[in-house]
Amino acid sequence: MDFIPKNIQKAIEQFTKLPGIGPKTAERLVFHLLKKSEAEVAELGESILALKKAIRYCNICQHLTTEEICDICKSERRNKATVCIVEDSLDLMALEKANEYKGLYHVLHGIISPVDGIGPDELTIAELIKRAKKGGIKEMILALNPSMEGEATAAYISRYVKPLNIKITRLARGIPIGGNLEYADSQTLKRAMEGRVEY
Amino acid sequence: MDFIPKNIQKAIEQFTKLPGIGPKTAERLVFHLLKKSEAEVAELGESILALKKAIRYCNICQHLTTEEICDICKSERRNKATVCIVEDSLDLMALEKANEYKGLYHVLHGIISPVDGIGPDELTIAELIKRAKKGGIKEMILALNPSMEGEATAAYISRYVKPLNIKITRLARGIPIGGNLEYADSQTLKRAMEGRVEY
Repeated sequence: MDFIPKNIQKAIEQFTKLPGIGPKTAERLVFHLLKKSEAEVAELGESILALKKAIRYCNICQHLTTEEICDICKSERRNKATVCIVEDSLDLMALEKANEYKGLYHVLHGIISPVDGIGPDELTIAELIKRAKKGGIKEMILALNPSMEGEATAAYISRYVKPLNIKITRLARGIPIGGNLEYADSQTLKRAMEGRVEY
Repeated sequence: MDFIPKNIQKAIEQFTKLPGIGPKTAERLVFHLLKKSEAEVAELGESILALKKAIRYCNICQHLTTEEICDICKSERRNKATVCIVEDSLDLMALEKANEYKGLYHVLHGIISPVDGIGPDELTIAELIKRAKKGGIKEMILALNPSMEGEATAAYISRYVKPLNIKITRLARGIPIGGNLEYADSQTLKRAMEGRVEY
């Protein structure tokens, strides 16, 4: 590729390393940036460079934060007796945007998956059990994806937490809002039927 | 969004500004970067910052370069009597990767599109005509997209270039390699039939 300046080549290569971005998309993104002002391009570059600066995990819930304790754990308005267990911070963000839940979280940073060699020790389950044993938690909500790995992780956690007299719940499963019965898979329909509620 | 550190928020916002990247994809990309080493993230950030540095357009063909004249125009092995006219540097790159064409290029940096308010003066057509008038060019290949705008641009250019005794050609149109007759649109099939060649 001597038909394109080296710094453009380099940027295309770098974008190609991102998930879901192939060489064609990377080219398009880089050429889009070339048309933008230097200031706009700098803003993107700087924001990426700043990304890893001062980022750490909350001492309590393991969510991403810049301080020892994250804003959610610090907040006075949060119900500290409920802990919602999520796979990663992205799931936490999705739940926060839904603006329904007002308790605390626990971020596992992964899910038990023997196929990928991820066992309970790779996750923050030890920290979760420590939190549970400390007392003060009345309910733990398992907000894990409804997959084999999600089920296995949920089972593992509840085995340790249930004896501590903490109520364990999981998110409801059923037809998604805006979803269409006709296109729902049979597992979803089965779960929706099982979990039917009075109208 | 006080449930996520500011620099992560900022990076997500910046990614969302890129074409074809919505908020969900931006989140995914940023969280992917958060899992990478500081060095890897810095490499992406630096490559973006370096992007606009020293980038200019070739004095001859208007392709992106870091010098006055680009490597293609400078090359001794290129056939200087043929000029291939493309909409942008991305199209030039696509043709270079095909590794078939050995002449020079001319990058228009757009296409005539009255709907978008882009006339011939917004493009590098004046520079192209100057090149044509200078002499030495025997053939110009119109490698423009087969769209209304592409046709209009081709017609406009050929009106100025034809009187200069330069042969004007355009890329062949037909069924793409790996394409399927069954799924080809009728315009493509019509062109393929018109342009049939002896077997």
